[in-house]
Amino acid sequence: MIETPALVDQYCHGVLRTELGLGTFEAQLSRTEGPPAAGTTLFDTQTGFAVRRWCPPLLGLEPHCPPARYLARRRELGVTEAGRRLLRGSGITAYLVDTGLPGDLTGATELGTAGDADAHEIVRLELLAEQVADTSGTVESFLANLAESVHGAAAHAVAFTSVAGVGHAPALAPEPPGPGEVRGAAGRWLAARRVGDELRDPVLLRHLLWIAVASGRPLQLHAGLAAPGTRIDRTDPVLLTDFVRATAGLGTDLVLLHGYPYHRQAAHLAGVFPHVYADCGAALVRTGARAATVLAEILELAPFGKVLFSSGARGLPELHVVGACLFRESLGRVLGTWVAEGAWSPEDAQRVAGMIASENAGRVYSLH
Amino acid sequence: MIETPALVDQYCHGVLRTELGLGTFEAQLSRTEGPPAAGTTLFDTQTGFAVRRWCPPLLGLEPHCPPARYLARRRELGVTEAGRRLLRGSGITAYLVDTGLPGDLTGATELGTAGDADAHEIVRLELLAEQVADTSGTVESFLANLAESVHGAAAHAVAFTSVAGVGHAPALAPEPPGPGEVRGAAGRWLAARRVGDELRDPVLLRHLLWIAVASGRPLQLHAGLAAPGTRIDRTDPVLLTDFVRATAGLGTDLVLLHGYPYHRQAAHLAGVFPHVYADCGAALVRTGARAATVLAEILELAPFGKVLFSSGARGLPELHVVGACLFRESLGRVLGTWVAEGAWSPEDAQRVAGMIASENAGRVYSLH
Amino acid sequence: MIETPALVDQYCHGVLRTELGLGTFEAQLSRTEGPPAAGTTLFDTQTGFAVRRWCPPLLGLEPHCPPARYLARRRELGVTEAGRRLLRGSGITAYLVDTGLPGDLTGATELGTAGDADAHEIVRLELLAEQVADTSGTVESFLANLAESVHGAAAHAVAFTSVAGVGHAPALAPEPPGPGEVRGAAGRWLAARRVGDELRDPVLLRHLLWIAVASGRPLQLHAGLAAPGTRIDRTDPVLLTDFVRATAGLGTDLVLLHGYPYHRQAAHLAGVFPHVYADCGAALVRTGARAATVLAEILELAPFGKVLFSSGARGLPELHVVGACLFRESLGRVLGTWVAEGAWSPEDAQRVAGMIASENAGRVYSLH
Repeated sequence: MIETPALVDQYCHGVLRTELGLGTFEAQLSRTEGPPAAGTTLFDTQTGFAVRRWCPPLLGLEPHCPPARYLARRRELGVTEAGRRLLRGSGITAYLVDTGLPGDLTGATELGTAGDADAHEIVRLELLAEQVADTSGTVESFLANLAESVHGAAAHAVAFTSVAGVGHAPALAPEPPGPGEVRGAAGRWLAARRVGDELRDPVLLRHLLWIAVASGRPLQLHAGLAAPGTRIDRTDPVLLTDFVRATAGLGTDLVLLHGYPYHRQAAHLAGVFPHVYADCGAALVRTGARAATVLAEILELAPFGKVLFSSGARGLPELHVVGACLFRESLGRVLGTWVAEGAWSPEDAQRVAGMIASENAGRVYSLH
Repeated sequence: MIETPALVDQYCHGVLRTELGLGTFEAQLSRTEGPPAAGTTLFDTQTGFAVRRWCPPLLGLEPHCPPARYLARRRELGVTEAGRRLLRGSGITAYLVDTGLPGDLTGATELGTAGDADAHEIVRLELLAEQVADTSGTVESFLANLAESVHGAAAHAVAFTSVAGVGHAPALAPEPPGPGEVRGAAGRWLAARRVGDELRDPVLLRHLLWIAVASGRPLQLHAGLAAPGTRIDRTDPVLLTDFVRATAGLGTDLVLLHGYPYHRQAAHLAGVFPHVYADCGAALVRTGARAATVLAEILELAPFGKVLFSSGARGLPELHVVGACLFRESLGRVLGTWVAEGAWSPEDAQRVAGMIASENAGRVYSLH
Repeated sequence: MIETPALVDQYCHGVLRTELGLGTFEAQLSRTEGPPAAGTTLFDTQTGFAVRRWCPPLLGLEPHCPPARYLARRRELGVTEAGRRLLRGSGITAYLVDTGLPGDLTGATELGTAGDADAHEIVRLELLAEQVADTSGTVESFLANLAESVHGAAAHAVAFTSVAGVGHAPALAPEPPGPGEVRGAAGRWLAARRVGDELRDPVLLRHLLWIAVASGRPLQLHAGLAAPGTRIDRTDPVLLTDFVRATAGLGTDLVLLHGYPYHRQAAHLAGVFPHVYADCGAALVRTGARAATVLAEILELAPFGKVLFSSGARGLPELHVVGACLFRESLGRVLGTWVAEGAWSPEDAQRVAGMIASENAGRVYSLH
């Protein structure tokens, strides 16, 4: 009943270009610290079941077919053709692609072409800083090149993203670090780092966030479900509150990605601060049959003009499909139930669906 | 099917006496740090949609009519008549009113008269202390007058409330501060304060809570969804555990207001400590179409004799209406579902509904 | 539709051997810090209502009959016969019994005989250490006897459990304490303790956890809903993350018990770490009519091969019944709904049901 003809995936990655076997495919379904326990498989997860539900029909198979059969069909078609069919079956009309991950992943343009959709680049701040460090000889040139690179990226990128900010949030003083502090931290980091080292220095991360804020481009901050190696409560978006308050009124929007299991807290921040937006996508891919409930929890406190869809997909086009299908189905079920109960009018439900599916993203990222 | 003929709103404020335009009305729908973002409106929230669902019919309009039309009708009737119709349509039979907010709000008696209901006053401890400070010349007279004022208020007020306690809870040692400590803190605060300054000194706040506890009147503590300017995790009611344990067995009940998104934790405290009660009201106004789920989450751990209804409304009589309507509908749906599933008997469901709607409050606040 | 013919209760206690009156029975329904508030009863809780729903029919009464009538019938049958009927009506086919609680509770074998089921012993580490301390004269003999006792227990016990670990988790350095540190802590504890004193020293607790890990037996850690006297947020299983990471790859499984209200976090850990499992039982007994939702929340992030059923029951066979009945009904409703929605295939739902009900436990505890 509820239609979402346009669907903007406001945060995702490219897909792998190589053929995948059962094990290499399974390893992309979740982010773990170690291989599955003996007697278990990552296919037996909400994400695994959701992939088996939504993707086989797009490749001509019945839903819920066994993983081995699905993978055989995928190889039969070839990774390129399978990817095309999957992405074009997702209903996503625009991809915003974080291209800052290692690995043989398609870029924004290639993903858009495969999916017959618009595509835009999101620049990952940590990678940008590492690339600048690789080519800068002195602290002064590093800092100057860094500012210039962020400024240059803002001209073509649709947004910036930072994955390290939230994990280090407890240590983050909300205000920008002073010039002397930044020079000292840069000097120590440049002297100690080897090529390929990740940026984790809290002073440089704060500096980086603030020069991104100064660019005016929306800044996406990872929160909740985190990379292996972290402690999940350190990704609770409430830890960003002081930074959020310090950046209010500067004209730059902040987008809290993921959020789960702290998505109610992310929604709260989106409700309190005019420049904060809440993502409602990646959590759905992880929670599968429970996606409608998780979406509904986000819609408790977040104003409807402050919620954005994403798939958060990386590596497998199946994850873009699952993100889009779970979102559309969940949105239809949640809003449809509220209409059936008399809580919402049908017109409001349709209007809000359009906002969350594409219009909010169009406004925040100036896509039109 | 489930009837709640009596409904005690155990925590609310008065309503504004002035006519409101679209913007001034909208600003009352939520508590934010700044005006709505460009392209968004606070009407597009669960609270906004709930107001549009429940209130227009009480003023002779169709549910879900546009905000501008609703506001026009409200002005046509006049703020007094609209308020009377709304409050009398809420089904609330008794209001417990926190009169300690600034602004041109009706008092307890005036609210009760408008709503054709009983009304009782809740005294806000911080305001009491500030008023005493305004009229006390010395530390000794301030402390003596403070004790006397709390004692005097206990004679006519139905409860005390403190809004600052939870925000400062991490700093709160659970026991009462010693006399020397209190005198020192009072001296510093009185010397530095200007008229109108809020009380935030943690020693004085502890002192104030403990003289309120000594009065025997129920003490309402704000937790969860907090005033702008705080960090929401600092309002998690678990932070009050040591204070709760220290006040056990003294004969004074503690009521945890709001709770959300930490309402399961508030319910846990109500289950573990005999003198602790959990509110199930203000969170419903904020979560609208999701109110039944939030109520059900509170009813997981909280004993049914320890749950109290409130609207938490301030400024707009629409919020009293929404609080009452969402509560009644949610309670009927949640308990009705459990009866339909065979989990509860119909007699138990009706009995528990009466307890939560009014009987628990009647007992805790000695209303009869 | 969904069948679970075998049901392994992977964590419970024995039942009381004495006849119980209304008050002594009520006191077993919940763990509180003090008697119920005036005007309230612990029968008016989700647990109380669930007992009244599921247990009277097993003793020949109608569901939801009044507590006094139920207790009269229970006494009429006698505690032994009532216990037999209840346990045999639970559908539990194997009990894993933590025998480390004080009080006149049946042991593992006696519980198994009464319930016509298999029974296995879980050894509580703190009690083992206290028993060793009672009979060891010197620090050296205490430490040697402790290592030997844990080693000996591992030969017959099906698992170890520790109740103190999570409460002290914030203080727990993840790595094992050094020998000198352990000797110092043991010396201080042995010198100060009186017989019957609980072990709370954080260094000795760490030492104890690590010698248990070295035994290779699964180690059950209490998390979430905690014993009276604690602060619930200090039982959030995320606080165990560093310990979990430090024990990865050693070949010993960790089982997070309870979890609620931090069960989504427990499920997250079970998803990230191959050697971590999440319990889905005790929380259901506490949340009654809400059990299906709580179970569904656990099934968001936890891989289906990593979830284990338990009743967490202690003292009353009614709690074993309620645990089993709520679990079976919730599992059937949750998975059945997902099948009806097309999200899961019927075959997958039946397969996952068998895994959670008994097969995962059989593999983790080597029950076959």
